[in-house]
Amino acid sequence: MIVIGGSAHNGIGQSLAKILGVKFYEVEHKVFPDGESYVRIPVDVMGEDVVVVQSTYYPQDKHVMELLLMLEALNALMVSNVTAVVPYLAYSRQDRRFRHGEALSIKVVLQAIRHSGANSLVVVEPHHPDALAHFEGDARIADPIPELASALKGVNDPVILAPDKGALDRAQRLAKALGADYDYLEKSRDRVTGEVSLVSGPTEKLRGRSVILVDDIISTGGTMMLAAKASYEAGAKEVIATAVHGLFVSDNAIERIKAAGIKRIIVTNTVPQTSPHVEVVDVSPSIARKL
Amino acid sequence: MIVIGGSAHNGIGQSLAKILGVKFYEVEHKVFPDGESYVRIPVDVMGEDVVVVQSTYYPQDKHVMELLLMLEALNALMVSNVTAVVPYLAYSRQDRRFRHGEALSIKVVLQAIRHSGANSLVVVEPHHPDALAHFEGDARIADPIPELASALKGVNDPVILAPDKGALDRAQRLAKALGADYDYLEKSRDRVTGEVSLVSGPTEKLRGRSVILVDDIISTGGTMMLAAKASYEAGAKEVIATAVHGLFVSDNAIERIKAAGIKRIIVTNTVPQTSPHVEVVDVSPSIARKL
Repeated sequence: MIVIGGSAHNGIGQSLAKILGVKFYEVEHKVFPDGESYVRIPVDVMGEDVVVVQSTYYPQDKHVMELLLMLEALNALMVSNVTAVVPYLAYSRQDRRFRHGEALSIKVVLQAIRHSGANSLVVVEPHHPDALAHFEGDARIADPIPELASALKGVNDPVILAPDKGALDRAQRLAKALGADYDYLEKSRDRVTGEVSLVSGPTEKLRGRSVILVDDIISTGGTMMLAAKASYEAGAKEVIATAVHGLFVSDNAIERIKAAGIKRIIVTNTVPQTSPHVEVVDVSPSIARKL
Repeated sequence: MIVIGGSAHNGIGQSLAKILGVKFYEVEHKVFPDGESYVRIPVDVMGEDVVVVQSTYYPQDKHVMELLLMLEALNALMVSNVTAVVPYLAYSRQDRRFRHGEALSIKVVLQAIRHSGANSLVVVEPHHPDALAHFEGDARIADPIPELASALKGVNDPVILAPDKGALDRAQRLAKALGADYDYLEKSRDRVTGEVSLVSGPTEKLRGRSVILVDDIISTGGTMMLAAKASYEAGAKEVIATAVHGLFVSDNAIERIKAAGIKRIIVTNTVPQTSPHVEVVDVSPSIARKL
């Protein structure tokens, strides 16, 4: 087995190869003056079992295209088997047709990955596990909850809070890993404006305790801020936010999250982080467990 | 039959629908705050023969992805047949493996278009006609040479010049359409630096005449400038540059082309143009001839 990192492997390629005790190579890549991507596999891979690592954070479409190009190039080189490791899977929130006539975007991405030559797929915590059913091959989910739990070990008297019911299973898993209990909020999102509001609040359980919010994605941070506000109103002593994928899409998302009284922000390296306010946990062990 | 225009149809959708005498609709599209695209087909298309128009100029990967999303959405709506009209086909210059280990990028794009649900494909003048063989369906090439010839009707004593041998067939077609003769240059391109140099120059044929350079793509304009210089050295009276796809990838490409003594720059609307120095010809009639 060898590991090949794409332009957006974000260090996970090396880390994974080290854990697996195999060789790591970075793909040769550039962008032509007109904006088209170029990739070349710089190593002999004939007959090899290849793990190709490419996350698909912003610019998502470019990173997806570069993954497809790598898969095509690998298959032309007569590899034995290709596993695509996509730590952050773009379009995974477009996993249903919410309105008539919409594209099922995640299906398009997963089919393109399959048809470009990936036999297997490993994704770190997709928005909904069912989404991977659109990959017509062997699809596995890497669970980085143990890695996030390690980063939270020192928290005193924690209670895990799911900011919505969709995050409940995740909260239960984190609670179990930390030997803590959990609670959840119910929110509602306007499909047109994207605005989020709270339907039912937290219980008495939060009073005087360290609340650990957990979600799959922090996007603008709106959900986390709403949940932090509700937690403090319910008497929380402190609020910590953790998520698998830290997108932080608005310019000042991190500052606004901090301003909402969130003491620590902990995410994984499926998406690159530059802010000193964000603690980053390596997901590579969770991926290695699935290979 | 109905025509649906994607975010990058650049007016060709409407124009095509008008020529064909059918209805035109624009797809509903937006980009989410995180950078992911969203598309929705806003009209009932069940059982329809749909022509979807999406050019794939910069940002190419985003425009390709939006085309794939539209194709998926159309198929889910149970259309009878989908023809993808891609006026400018991205990655069409990556139609061979120039070095071992490279991706055959055009194959990736064409397979994704096919697998996302296009039964047929119409592309305006791809870099090499053979490239479309990677589309495992009915692929047709629209030839806009008659439209470019119309824009050149008033040129006095023209001679068509192919700036390299790859453009020779195109030059012959334009020469025939204008009742003119033709000549060609031989150039060589360094695969690593991309730099272009002239191997053999033009003949005596150009002296005192209006030289019309023709190519499929104007990218940085380097090839056109080199050919203009050679033409003037060979005694050309004036030089006009025409191409199907005007990319003009460097900021001052058009100014540099004008500064090289090129009197007119004529391209088609497969790529949007904003400079007043560029004359734009509508390719829609050439596409309509293939539908």
